Amino acid sequence: MYSDKVRAALEKTGISPGDRVLVEKGKEKFEGVLMPKPESAGDPETLVVKLDSGYNAGVRFDAAVKISKKEGGAKLQSFPSLSLKQDASLPELSLIATGGTIASRVDYNTGGVKWLMEPGNLFALAPELAGIARFRMQKPFLVGSENMCAKHWMQIAEAAAKELNSGVRGVVVTHGTDTLHFSSAALSFMLKDIPAPVAFTYAQRSSDRGSSDSPMNLVCVAQFAAKADAAEVVLVGHAESSDSYCFAIRGTKARKMHSSRRDAFRPINDTALAKIWPDGKIEMAGGARKRSKSKAVADAVFEEKTALVKFHPCASPELIDFFVDKKYRGIVIEATGLGHVATDESEHNWLPTIKRAIEEGVVVCFAPQTIYGRVDPFVYAEARKAHELGVVYCQDMLPETAFVKLGWLLGHKGMGAKEVGKRMLENVAGELNPRLTENQFMA
Amino acid sequence: MYSDKVRAALEKTGISPGDRVLVEKGKEKFEGVLMPKPESAGDPETLVVKLDSGYNAGVRFDAAVKISKKEGGAKLQSFPSLSLKQDASLPELSLIATGGTIASRVDYNTGGVKWLMEPGNLFALAPELAGIARFRMQKPFLVGSENMCAKHWMQIAEAAAKELNSGVRGVVVTHGTDTLHFSSAALSFMLKDIPAPVAFTYAQRSSDRGSSDSPMNLVCVAQFAAKADAAEVVLVGHAESSDSYCFAIRGTKARKMHSSRRDAFRPINDTALAKIWPDGKIEMAGGARKRSKSKAVADAVFEEKTALVKFHPCASPELIDFFVDKKYRGIVIEATGLGHVATDESEHNWLPTIKRAIEEGVVVCFAPQTIYGRVDPFVYAEARKAHELGVVYCQDMLPETAFVKLGWLLGHKGMGAKEVGKRMLENVAGELNPRLTENQFMA
Repeated sequence: MYSDKVRAALEKTGISPGDRVLVEKGKEKFEGVLMPKPESAGDPETLVVKLDSGYNAGVRFDAAVKISKKEGGAKLQSFPSLSLKQDASLPELSLIATGGTIASRVDYNTGGVKWLMEPGNLFALAPELAGIARFRMQKPFLVGSENMCAKHWMQIAEAAAKELNSGVRGVVVTHGTDTLHFSSAALSFMLKDIPAPVAFTYAQRSSDRGSSDSPMNLVCVAQFAAKADAAEVVLVGHAESSDSYCFAIRGTKARKMHSSRRDAFRPINDTALAKIWPDGKIEMAGGARKRSKSKAVADAVFEEKTALVKFHPCASPELIDFFVDKKYRGIVIEATGLGHVATDESEHNWLPTIKRAIEEGVVVCFAPQTIYGRVDPFVYAEARKAHELGVVYCQDMLPETAFVKLGWLLGHKGMGAKEVGKRMLENVAGELNPRLTENQFMA
Repeated sequence: MYSDKVRAALEKTGISPGDRVLVEKGKEKFEGVLMPKPESAGDPETLVVKLDSGYNAGVRFDAAVKISKKEGGAKLQSFPSLSLKQDASLPELSLIATGGTIASRVDYNTGGVKWLMEPGNLFALAPELAGIARFRMQKPFLVGSENMCAKHWMQIAEAAAKELNSGVRGVVVTHGTDTLHFSSAALSFMLKDIPAPVAFTYAQRSSDRGSSDSPMNLVCVAQFAAKADAAEVVLVGHAESSDSYCFAIRGTKARKMHSSRRDAFRPINDTALAKIWPDGKIEMAGGARKRSKSKAVADAVFEEKTALVKFHPCASPELIDFFVDKKYRGIVIEATGLGHVATDESEHNWLPTIKRAIEEGVVVCFAPQTIYGRVDPFVYAEARKAHELGVVYCQDMLPETAFVKLGWLLGHKGMGAKEVGKRMLENVAGELNPRLTENQFMA
């Protein structure tokens, strides 16, 4: 809420949140929609104006501020919707909407969030969609991805398997960006024998901004799900910062590499499985599982007593003891370089606590903190020591993917630590790339 | 040690480690130098042959194995050395050697490590060096960088300040690669008012491999330290995988992004401060502090009760309690996206434990898990909640750099949590880049 002082001033000029305003302070001028102030949102004396660029400007309210009403205020109550007649011969896609920026829109009157509710909302964002496929839609939950956990992954996996087995041409999942690559990895492991693609997409910029990436991402993901001969779990989104084309990246080989860019998701230690142009052209890199008539199975289990830990200089090895004492069953350590932790004779030596963890049945894995490249215990003698204790060196697997895979394996009742360690190094969903190529670095 | 069986077989053929051998097993043939087997190194029945490519091949010894002696075995006792007459008018550089691949060489007779000891060793690696500068050298300690901690950073900082104040033209630090970017960040903060460059360099491939990067890195780092008008702490190394040119990257903006490539160190959210060609051409990007007559001061302090933690889906907030209970004074959290952790009403909500940590005087910082881009508490309401609790949003600072900076600030006696939080957001050594540009992503 704005302060009493600010609200009194607004009332006097007959302005309320949602109106289009011109705010002037000295030489600065901001024209746009006056935003409401949610309960917990910062300084109650700072006016927030959503500019036409989509960015918010904050102006501290004081005697120097002049505010006047302009024509054309936004009174957005909900997602816009467009009703379009569709050809029944179009392939049918199943959309699973799960929250995040792509599925939400701020209501300028209340500051509350309005959610994507029906296919008409998609058509309003990108009318081309109506010519690509018919959509049926479900919303198992609407949660920002920073709040997602294994139970959400399992729900999406169950829903996707059911949809695939009902005969749809493909499944599209809209999802927040923060932990999207964890979810795409989880579905890659949890879904077996899928007959058609399961393609995640997202928006880095909200759909009320001119620079929003959601229209092109939605068009590309629909093109891929409807047309690509790929029965894989993938993440589809901008390949470049401009609206040129999208990547479809293997769900286990994607990582969010930028906090705000539209092309934030990159293939790591891998080549994108496909390039997709909005007009429907698809270039496959090869190696994808083909569509088939198989029946999808959701193997949706997860052991939450799994941790992802980053080693760093001066890090206390007691951290490992903490997880062992809490009865964790698996720990992925982001090790440095080719797979190292401190091994000297100081109080920082991690080997004794790792030894204890393994002796107590915890599966301890090393994954590359460098993100790109692979860990390898056979180059330096120090790494061999960890390997001999039983640490699983996860090759070129992303730490995030290793964490998800480890939790998923441990979720299988009766699978012992030894078996889990062995399976970590068996390729389930393209998470291991035995032959990294020059062009798979920083691409 | 090789097993008794293997040693008996070697003895019979008169072969010992260090000899050049041909090992044949079925259709496989490996020719190279037979390596010794250190005490703890894997299977005692696997022969290790260092191929001419520099790679090691392991061949399990059994009845099918034939091994024969070839001409030209290596009997490398120590680093080769080259004595070169140098012109007294050349600028003098001070080399601080601290271990790591660049400063070590495996002794084929014992499996032990031989260290870089004197400037003649450098000249043997890259004779061009003798025409660039004269070198004086010290080895305060020889430690692989996975075992480095704050006490090592402080020692290097003290040594570098002393050398700079003695009037050398620049300081070069050779260092292992694993945690090199932590060390370069530490020196960036710990060294004030330096009159000349302090330039780290490294090798990703050992100097006995044809593909070693150490000769070009050494030449480029010497060119930079001797000639560049930059009184900055930088990291110098291959800009591309080929031997084309090197980058000098600001010490606070570098990160090891690949486990094995020669061009593993990349500038993050920044442009390289300089490009350096081995022939001495230097292209400065601008913005570097200039050389001066100032007196370097080592402000070498560090609070080891500082942690770097990665948030991930399903992560238990009890982890924060663990550090608070252990009397940690600072925690950097790698938050997702624009700076988020779980904030929902589940047992995974991190806000209550973060609140407790801050109330107990712990400085809690968020840095971008995406590596590229910046955290920003003002885009989503969920982030504002953390910000209002007092979490310090570290903008575009690398998590590794934020960790080092936080520990360094906390190391100053009498500096309270509030002051530390404020200083985290004040630029000390280029760790904050207020204006990210398009070409600073994945470059």
